[in-house]
Amino acid sequence: MQTNAQALLLSSSNCHGFSLLEFAKQEICSFLETRNVSELVFVPYAQKNYDDYTKKIKDAFTPWGFSVIGLHTYSDPAAAINSAKAIFVGGGNTFLLLKTLYDNQLVHLIREKVITGNLLYIGSSAGTNVATKSIHTTNDMPIIYPPSFDAISIVPFNINPHYIDKIETDTHKGETRDQRIEEYMEMPHANPVLGLREGCILHVNGDSLVLKGVAGAVLFEVNVSKKVEYPVGADVSFLLNYAKETC
Amino acid sequence: MQTNAQALLLSSSNCHGFSLLEFAKQEICSFLETRNVSELVFVPYAQKNYDDYTKKIKDAFTPWGFSVIGLHTYSDPAAAINSAKAIFVGGGNTFLLLKTLYDNQLVHLIREKVITGNLLYIGSSAGTNVATKSIHTTNDMPIIYPPSFDAISIVPFNINPHYIDKIETDTHKGETRDQRIEEYMEMPHANPVLGLREGCILHVNGDSLVLKGVAGAVLFEVNVSKKVEYPVGADVSFLLNYAKETC
Repeated sequence: MQTNAQALLLSSSNCHGFSLLEFAKQEICSFLETRNVSELVFVPYAQKNYDDYTKKIKDAFTPWGFSVIGLHTYSDPAAAINSAKAIFVGGGNTFLLLKTLYDNQLVHLIREKVITGNLLYIGSSAGTNVATKSIHTTNDMPIIYPPSFDAISIVPFNINPHYIDKIETDTHKGETRDQRIEEYMEMPHANPVLGLREGCILHVNGDSLVLKGVAGAVLFEVNVSKKVEYPVGADVSFLLNYAKETC
Repeated sequence: MQTNAQALLLSSSNCHGFSLLEFAKQEICSFLETRNVSELVFVPYAQKNYDDYTKKIKDAFTPWGFSVIGLHTYSDPAAAINSAKAIFVGGGNTFLLLKTLYDNQLVHLIREKVITGNLLYIGSSAGTNVATKSIHTTNDMPIIYPPSFDAISIVPFNINPHYIDKIETDTHKGETRDQRIEEYMEMPHANPVLGLREGCILHVNGDSLVLKGVAGAVLFEVNVSKKVEYPVGADVSFLLNYAKETC
């Protein structure tokens, strides 16, 4: 996949021991400043109250020297995306986010602008899920029916944000996260799944994919029985090659 | 909703301290025996390996005096459902199950047969999710895209199986089960959600809904801020009336 995409895909906005987005401050600031961007359009579609959500994000970004404008405040969201240099797509419910992006005809527009290097993309949690090939590996409840599970496809594989090895109690019989991801890996349409631990950031810089932040990631591959750990700093650019070979 | 439905909707097949389906043995045996049914058609669509899955279920039911035949062994699944007196729809992945039911044109057929009192329905976990109004409140990962989230609608509300108050660790920032259900409750299309704790069985007997098994349930209602606990033995038939009023 030939791409000029520039993106930061965060596992989550919250990370234990940090205030909102604080764990990612250095990466976000460096990402935007080196590209001379001081204004972000914020996409609040993953939550219900757009104004409240935008205020929260604004409160985090303003002290870092960036201005934030909610996409919902524009009468024409597509025109706003077309004029934007950078967007931040926040977390919440992945199904609600993807459906609203489709409703506003933004999925293909964002893909084209990002892939051609004309729009910087920062996503967190649900905002990271929709940046990938599809939302098949979200943890969210399917509270609303989107027209497709196909997503923006800035990267040609899947991500599981908030990745955690085991969250159930010893006596609870619901599936673990790994069991859920393994169910997906058995599907004929399965892509590799990168499980981003909370605090992990996937830095997409054209053909380079590097793990940043304060926690690593775990890779599940089709026909590979064992997941593989990648620490902060690991180069996972091969995931672009893998997708090329199997597409 | 006028219904002659006869159903047992289990939160799960596994329950801490019991072997497979053992916690529900008495209810299942009584349900089938009082209706003179000794043969079950098993719907294995929620998992990948139909033969293995059917064998597991057969191994549980055979000692209780019931025979089990996998629906996948019939060349015409619709004809098999038409001839069946009782079905057991097993757990696994809710999206895979619902898609396969739609692919085989069984959703409406099962609804009609159950609602008119011509087919006994036992479901567990994903098999319980698809028996409700929609799969909006499944816990499963959306590993495959079904043509709709609307489900069999034996009951006119939603169920969250494997309900648990809190499953995340103290340091993990992913949403709790309650937060996920509350996101759904904010949707304009939201129905009430009955969270069945593992070990809980909803017994549907025409216009009567009673909680059975070894654990209770929790009810989330639209515009009601606090969830309400219902113990084993509670009559929740009012949920049919609620739906009538709001439909």
